[in-house]
Order: sequence, then structure tokens, then C-alpha cells
Amino acid sequence: MRSSNISMISTILSMSPLNVLVRCLFLIFCCLTTSALAAKTRHFRWDVGNILWSPDCVENLVMGINGQFPGPTIRARSGDTIVVHLHNKLHTEGLVIHWHGIRQLGTPWADGTASISQCVIKPNENFVYRFKVDKAGTYFYHGHYGMQRSAGLYGSLIVDVAEGEKEPFHYDGEFNLLLSDWWHQSVHEQEVGLSSNPFRWIGEPQSVLINGRGQYNCSLAAHFSNSTSKLCKIKGDAQCSPHVLRVLPNKTYRLRIASTTSLNSLNLAIVNHKMVLVEADGNYIDPVAVENVDIYSGESYSVLITTDQNPSMNYWVSLSVRGRKPNTPPGLTILNYHSNAPFKLPISPPSKSPLWNNYTHSKIFTNKILALESKTSKPPTRFNRRIYLLNTQTKINGFIKWSINNISLVLPSTPYLGSMKHNLKGAFDQISPPETFSNNYDILKPPVNPNSTYGSSVYVLEYNTTIDIILQNANALASNVSEIHPWHLHGHDFWVLGYGEGKFSEKNDEKKLNLKNPPYRNTAVIFPYGWTALRFVTDNPGVWPFHCHIEPHLHMGMGVIFAEGVNRIKNIPDVAVNCGLTANLTKNT
Amino acid sequence: MRSSNISMISTILSMSPLNVLVRCLFLIFCCLTTSALAAKTRHFRWDVGNILWSPDCVENLVMGINGQFPGPTIRARSGDTIVVHLHNKLHTEGLVIHWHGIRQLGTPWADGTASISQCVIKPNENFVYRFKVDKAGTYFYHGHYGMQRSAGLYGSLIVDVAEGEKEPFHYDGEFNLLLSDWWHQSVHEQEVGLSSNPFRWIGEPQSVLINGRGQYNCSLAAHFSNSTSKLCKIKGDAQCSPHVLRVLPNKTYRLRIASTTSLNSLNLAIVNHKMVLVEADGNYIDPVAVENVDIYSGESYSVLITTDQNPSMNYWVSLSVRGRKPNTPPGLTILNYHSNAPFKLPISPPSKSPLWNNYTHSKIFTNKILALESKTSKPPTRFNRRIYLLNTQTKINGFIKWSINNISLVLPSTPYLGSMKHNLKGAFDQISPPETFSNNYDILKPPVNPNSTYGSSVYVLEYNTTIDIILQNANALASNVSEIHPWHLHGHDFWVLGYGEGKFSEKNDEKKLNLKNPPYRNTAVIFPYGWTALRFVTDNPGVWPFHCHIEPHLHMGMGVIFAEGVNRIKNIPDVAVNCGLTANLTKNT
Repeated sequence: MRSSNISMISTILSMSPLNVLVRCLFLIFCCLTTSALAAKTRHFRWDVGNILWSPDCVENLVMGINGQFPGPTIRARSGDTIVVHLHNKLHTEGLVIHWHGIRQLGTPWADGTASISQCVIKPNENFVYRFKVDKAGTYFYHGHYGMQRSAGLYGSLIVDVAEGEKEPFHYDGEFNLLLSDWWHQSVHEQEVGLSSNPFRWIGEPQSVLINGRGQYNCSLAAHFSNSTSKLCKIKGDAQCSPHVLRVLPNKTYRLRIASTTSLNSLNLAIVNHKMVLVEADGNYIDPVAVENVDIYSGESYSVLITTDQNPSMNYWVSLSVRGRKPNTPPGLTILNYHSNAPFKLPISPPSKSPLWNNYTHSKIFTNKILALESKTSKPPTRFNRRIYLLNTQTKINGFIKWSINNISLVLPSTPYLGSMKHNLKGAFDQISPPETFSNNYDILKPPVNPNSTYGSSVYVLEYNTTIDIILQNANALASNVSEIHPWHLHGHDFWVLGYGEGKFSEKNDEKKLNLKNPPYRNTAVIFPYGWTALRFVTDNPGVWPFHCHIEPHLHMGMGVIFAEGVNRIKNIPDVAVNCGLTANLTKNT
Repeated sequence: MRSSNISMISTILSMSPLNVLVRCLFLIFCCLTTSALAAKTRHFRWDVGNILWSPDCVENLVMGINGQFPGPTIRARSGDTIVVHLHNKLHTEGLVIHWHGIRQLGTPWADGTASISQCVIKPNENFVYRFKVDKAGTYFYHGHYGMQRSAGLYGSLIVDVAEGEKEPFHYDGEFNLLLSDWWHQSVHEQEVGLSSNPFRWIGEPQSVLINGRGQYNCSLAAHFSNSTSKLCKIKGDAQCSPHVLRVLPNKTYRLRIASTTSLNSLNLAIVNHKMVLVEADGNYIDPVAVENVDIYSGESYSVLITTDQNPSMNYWVSLSVRGRKPNTPPGLTILNYHSNAPFKLPISPPSKSPLWNNYTHSKIFTNKILALESKTSKPPTRFNRRIYLLNTQTKINGFIKWSINNISLVLPSTPYLGSMKHNLKGAFDQISPPETFSNNYDILKPPVNPNSTYGSSVYVLEYNTTIDIILQNANALASNVSEIHPWHLHGHDFWVLGYGEGKFSEKNDEKKLNLKNPPYRNTAVIFPYGWTALRFVTDNPGVWPFHCHIEPHLHMGMGVIFAEGVNRIKNIPDVAVNCGLTANLTKNT
């Protein structure tokens, strides 16, 4: 569309003034009607329920949508309105669905966070999610109640550029790779173990999945492995049969990669194929070539690959665990050059992945991600408020928790959006949570006093101000342990001003912050013993969680709540907040 | 207390008139204060949540109360008020608790049935059950939402006679045996399998449990078994260690036996010890000696045993599966005579149980249960309305269901108690369900047309009338299959007027009905290809389910709803019906 407009403009330049006027009016008319035609309302009818499915060739109970796993891919254009008519077919469990990366501008009640933006949708009940996708990019959706994301409640959400718009890069075709990790133990058992004293960790996953498909206890690339793993024998139509990427030679493909893992950080590589990163979390980035892609839970990337290798062969696409000592074999699929057989096994082994604890590799990769300046707004140069968030592993009455500034988040029964709108002070802790932590805190050692407290308090942020967040990592309860945490913000993208080692120091680190071309994202990682500095503007009235995207960490309290401009929110649908203390208020307000 | 009153009266008879007056006033004062003191309000604080537990020596997710399985035993006296302050600690599941056998006179909102008497209690929410236990007997409680009973949500509820009252039989001590069956597959998986097409049956249980304790993959009595099962090696303090019955020689013990099985009919026997049945479902029965006890899900019995055997030995208590071809070894525990070691294994093998399909044995046993006439009201001699309920296995869109008069019960989102009280006609099917089935229906063959429909309609019963129910069994979908179904009525006891073979015939069977001393119960079985006739009086305003107590059968629609005198119900607590269509009504009514 855009190219035809350009050719029309060049034609116009060679014409008479009257002709120009007529043509110009016609052009304006075309543009108006095109844009009016282009923005669509897309309806989806979803039944969410448990199904029996074999994500990694082992049958399990899986939370599916319309009888399938992963849930259906939503595909829309920027500017469209998505309407999901959801019916809860679970027998005894409530649910909500979060649209990860969609900022919900003007629709904070559609963010899909239980106890925050809405009441849980009860079994046999319906709920309609209606929201605009305002920005092209690679997104996904997932359950945001209990640990239902880990139960398989997720799918892809792809937003193309609006009709007539173009991406700032070219590609001939695309693939969508939604990455996840998978346990055979039920999520209910995982939740109980994590909430028990003595604590029971969920362990490493049995499998990593690409588009919900993995292989447990066998390997597609067994003959390259040192281990005794046997070769997978998978029928082409099996639920665990890998999603093969079928390509033509000498073309450019866009791989949309998103990670909804419960726990694992991952590294994706394709043998002999370089990748060029072009998008992160729904924002364009300065194109950068990489050998492989580190991706943390909650992140998404688009990479371009060129199919410039020997077309008589297929190539491994591999997915390895990073940041935790792996006990899970790599996830595999095949880059299949036309016209090889799809399952013709590659003759070279899968790419050697970086060592799980090679954090230098991770940091180099992460620091390569910078905004495409021509397409990204710049951060305000000054902040109005800076909040330091210390990430610590703590104990409460002997139970192991994660805490932020020594508070472990517990969500209230009444969703914040309703209780804050109605100014119900009894609904959650009214104290202001701490802005920072003690100057003397030694982040390199286990906490001297490991005890923290439960809390449901809210960081109330002034509307239309600039907020800095300094995420500060620290040592966990055990000596010499500091973990990776990918932090995800709802309702916003933020500028990632920088990553650093040790404790953030205004004196030394302030000047290192990147105000020129920081990447604009919704998820950012903190490395072990390091800090990460983020900036965002409170221009989206709502109540927005900001939390570690590792599902068991969030379950253990690793998050905070931000609220901004709640008094400006109008027309919260009754049904969204018709529970708890706001159950009987909604009709009267 | 009663005996001391009697001796006081005899003393009075031998005294002077003034003395008599003083003594009489004192006696009246004593009685008044005694009775005032006697009726107590007993409070219980329960946290309900999933726990990791090993009911049969295999660890599993179990729904527990206050961290234990089975839930705590409630013990009270007739006339007491029970107040259970319940907190839902499940992460994503709602729950309710039904007090099985308690008629909830005047408190129909405390019956604990999801979508019928109340809204589901959501995670992190509280609910207070407050009800009177008006009649001594052996009861139990259990979840009544989804298949949460099968998940382990149950416990005993024992009501002793009121202070000053006596049981019509003597005993020196008592034991409480709550029987259940146990699967290793999660209830969520069971639910999905039962709701799938193709249908997946849950299969026979891995273990039967006595007071929540069983032994999987080993036997306490291995050396008597023909099979290759190995001897259990169980530590005395293990969660699956059997609950040994420690007795003194030459005493009489009351065994309170209740079955909350999900599926299995059971037979309980004790080597060399005859039993005398004295109570069924909280009502006294004419004492009758039996060799062993057949017990169906939902039933309870008290039996007396006398410890008149050689006291130098211990004796097996065994629990075998009846009515379905068993694939589960017997549950076992030990009757331990003082002062033998508790785990000294008996030298004689466990009692030989009747063959699983020896229905003659079952029928003889069941027909022995007759009311203790001096303690039981008689049924009205005439009925006002007689409803025939045909039990068939059917299909709906290819899904296998159980149906009653060709309707498979689905519960509405809004509890009937609220929607009927508020006359909300949109809340459930308004048609009257059928009073009977076709005269031509051949109960000996699979249904000619196996298709039925879903329904949520209600049998509205006129207040204070006499209702007869003829439960009619039939052939299932497969030829030559007709199953046992134990039917349980909420809010009432009923008189069991009789059991018969084939199709009930007014002409031939009416005269066989027992109006003299029918047992008064809350659960009655229908045998394969047979009928069972019940009578009750609609004297308890409320909405009461009547259903097969086999958990997967109820899940598949095997129940009906009765409502009586709903306009007489006052003071339904808002919190009980604050959901669905009655969510915002309650404040205004």
C-alpha cells in the first residue's frame, strides 16, 4: 500500500495544478477510507478447560483453549480491537488471561490479572476481554492466576503493522516460535511444594517446548549426543511432533520468538545461520547480528535469518537452558530447506550452546539490544521519583519467600482496581511500601536477618511523572547464590537505561545510564549480584503489577504493585470488579 | 444423668410432702440448668488446602483440613450447634462442604452444595457454616463441588445423644471407621477423562482406605494371599500405617462405620467376630446379627462387637470391594486384644468376603435393615405424589452421561436457593422434569434411543406433603450391564419402603411395600435391574439434591433437584448467595 502511494505521489509531481488538486483530494479520501477499513474488530470465542495432551510425548493434564494446546494464535493488525469471549470450562478453578506486552491504554480492567485488574472468572462463567492492539509486535497471552501459566494456559498474539504501514526491515516469510518449559508434576503439586515448610523446589523441567512441542526421554539428535539418550520415534501427526520450519533457499525469514517459560532462561541457535535481531518486546531495535539468542521468560524477539546455506541439507534449531544448571535436554526442531524431507535429520550436530553459567555471554548479548532511534521515543532526561527495589530471598515463619524491600507480595481478595477506585481502605495494606533499602545491606552475602513480612501495599505513582526503578539483585539465602530474574511491567514499556555489577551507586553509575538509545521494552533481566535501571512515564491510568516473570518466584511473593491516575479511570465494567468488597458497590457507582 | 434422675425420683416417693416439694423444685431446676448447659455451640476453625500426603504409602496431592487428612472429626451432642469457620487456602479452586446426613432443619443455606444451596467459597475467602445437629448418629462431611470428595476432602461427624439421654444399647467403648477409596490419578484428570469423547473411565481405585489409611502395592496379610503381593513394611508413625483397634477382652464395642467412597461398594468383616447392627444413617435399627457388613457410598452403620475371642491373638478387620469386579486388594487393619503387640499379625487369614457379584448376599443383607420401631416415626400410610425416576446411561452429542428420566443434571451458575427465593426464572430450566418414564421402556436392554439431554430443572414439591420416589434401575449402554447406585437425599431422611426386582409394578409391588417398620435413612441403594421405593414428607423448606453418591456418576449428571417451601425460607445469609444472578440482589431483599 505504502509503495503504491509513493508511486502515486511521483505521478502527481508531473501533473497540472488542477489535476494535482483532484488527485490530492482522491489520495486523501483513499487514505481515510483505507484507515477506516483497516482497523478491525476481531472476535474470538474461547472455551478454556483442562484437556489430556502430550506436549512432550507424555500424556498430562494441560490447560487448553478450544481443546488445543497451546491456545490459538491471535493475529491482528495494529489499531485493531480484539474481543475474546471467554468461557471458563474448568470444573472447580477460576481463571483470568493476561495479554502480555499489550499496554491496555484506556482499558486497565482488561489486563487479565487476578486480584489486581479484575475478579477471577468462575467456572461456568463468561467474561469478555476487549482491548486495542496499538503497536505491531510479537506478543503472547497467558493465565495470570495461581500458576496457571505453568499449567499450559498460553498462546501467541501477533500484531502486524497497520494496513499501509511497513516494517523497517524486509522479510519473505515468517515463523512464530513460542517457547516454554514443561513439568510432569501437576501445577497444584508444584504450588503446594513451594508453599510448604520444609520447602520443596519444583526442580528443573522435564522438557523445553517449541510451540508446545518437546520430546521427553528421547532426542531427535541422539546420535550427536554423548549421553545414552535414544532416538525419538515420533509419528508426524503426534502432539509432540516438532514444528518443522519449512524454508526456501535464499530467502529472508522473520522468526518471532517469545518465551513464556515458567522458570528457564533459554538460548536459541540455528546451525550455520546467523541471526539479526530487529524487534524486542514489540519495539524495533537497532539491527544487530548475533550467533544465538538469549531469551528470558516474558521477553520476545524478532530475528531475521537468511537461508543462504547448502539447500540439500536440513539444520538443527536448538533451545538450551541458561542461567541454572540444566537438567533438561535441549529442545529441538528442524530448519527444513525445500525440497528435503521435513524430518531428514541434519548431518551436523546442533549448535554448541554457551555454558549455562557463562554470564559474560549473557551480558554481552543483552547490552547489544539498543533502540532503533528513528522508531523509538527517547526517555525524559530527568526522573521525578526513583524507587530502589532490593530482590531478596527471605523467610516468613520458616516458609521460604522472595521479597522486595523486605515485603513478600500477597494479593488481596478484592482486586485493587475496584478497591482503589472506590477508595476502600480496608481492602489492602495502606502503608506506603519502602522507596529503598538500607545503605548497609551487603548484597554479596545472604541476608543477615532473613525474615521478611507479607504485604499487599501499593506504590501510588503521581500521574504523568517519570519514574525510575533501580532493580537491585542480591545473594539468596544460601551463600554464593544469586539468581537471574526477568522483571515484567504491566501497562507500560520502559526504557532500560542500563545494567551493572554490584550495588547501584548514584555517584558512579548514574553517568553510565544510556539516555540516548535505551531499548524500550516490557521485560528486563537483572543478572546475579547486579542492578538494572529502568525509566517509564506514568501516562496510563491503572493498577499495574511489576514482577519477576519466573512463575514460582511470583508465587513466592516476588512482585510489587504500581497504581497511577486511578481517579481518571472511567467506566470500569461492573463484571470486572464484582467480587470481594466491591461486589455490591458496582451497581451504585 | 438419666439413671441418677430415676434414682432421685424413687427417693422422693419415700419422703414427706414438704420434702417432696423442695426436692421437686430442685429437680426441675437441675433439669433446666442441665439442659441449658448441655446444648453447646462448638466452634471449629478450618483451613482447607491441598497438602502432600501418603494415604496408601504413595505420596499424592490431597485436599486436607488444617494440614491433615482426613479432616478433623467433629464430635458433638444432639442439640448442639456446630460453627465451622472455614478459610479456603486452595490457590485457584473454590470449595464447599456438605454435612452428610444432617438435615439442616431451618438452615438450608448451610447444606454445603455448590450451585444448589450456596455460592462456592473462593480462594482466600471465608465462610461460616452454622447448623444444629438435632439427632444422635454416625455422620460425615465432604466436599460437594466438582469431584473434591474424591480429592480427599472429607472427615467424620459424630453426634452423641444429648446429655442425660441414653442410646438404646450398651457398649463399653467405640471406634470410628471412615471408609474411602483412593486413586493415584488426580481428580482433575479423572474429571477430564469422564467429560471426554472418547470417554475415559477412572478405573478401579488403587487402594481402599480406613480412616484415610491404606497400603498400595503391599499387603499386611501377604502370607495368606495367593497373589505375589509382598508384606508391607510400614513404620508405626507413617501416614499409611493402619489405624489399629485396641480392645480389652470381654467388652462390647461400637464400631461407627461410614462410607465416603467415590465409587466402591464395600464389605467389612472381622475374623471370628459377629456384629450386631444397631444404627443406619443416624437412625436406630432393630438389632440384627450379621457376619459382615455391606456398605454403600453415603451410608453409615453402627455395629456392636463383643471381644469374646481368644485374647492371646489379634484378628483381621478387612474391607473388600463389592458390586464391581475388584482390582483393588482388601483394606486391612487389626483388632488388637490387650495386651498383644498392636502389630502382632493374626494367625488366621482375613475373612473370606462374599463374591463381588453375589447380589443375593447384598439383597439379604439390605433387607435385614429394619427400623427400631420404638425409636422411629412411621411413614404416612398414603402418598400425595409419586415420582418415578428411571436411571439410565445415555449419550449427549457422543459424550457418555447418566440420566434420570432422560435428563442429565447440569447445575446452573446461580445457586437454586437464591434464584428460587428471588423467583429468577432465567437462572435454570423452568420446565417441570418428567414424573415418570415410558411404560414401554425395557429396563433389561440397553436404551433403544440412547440420546438424552442436559437439564437443570427442579421437582417443586408442595410443602408438607408425602412424596414417594420409585427409583428404577435399568440396563446401561452395554448389554447385560446394570450397576448399583446408592441414592442420597439431602435435607431429609426417607423411609425405605422396599426393594424389588425388575420394573416396579403398582399392581404387584404396591402390596409388598413395608409401612410397618421401614428403615429411616438418607441413602438407599438400587440393585441391578431392580427398583427401590422411598417415602418422605416435605417438611423442611429448602432446595435439596437427590443423587447417586458415586462421585463420577454425579459428575456425569446422575441426580435431580427437589425444592419445597422455598417461600417460607427467611434470612438466607447474603454471603451464601452473593454470586451469579443473585450477586447484586441480596442487599436489597
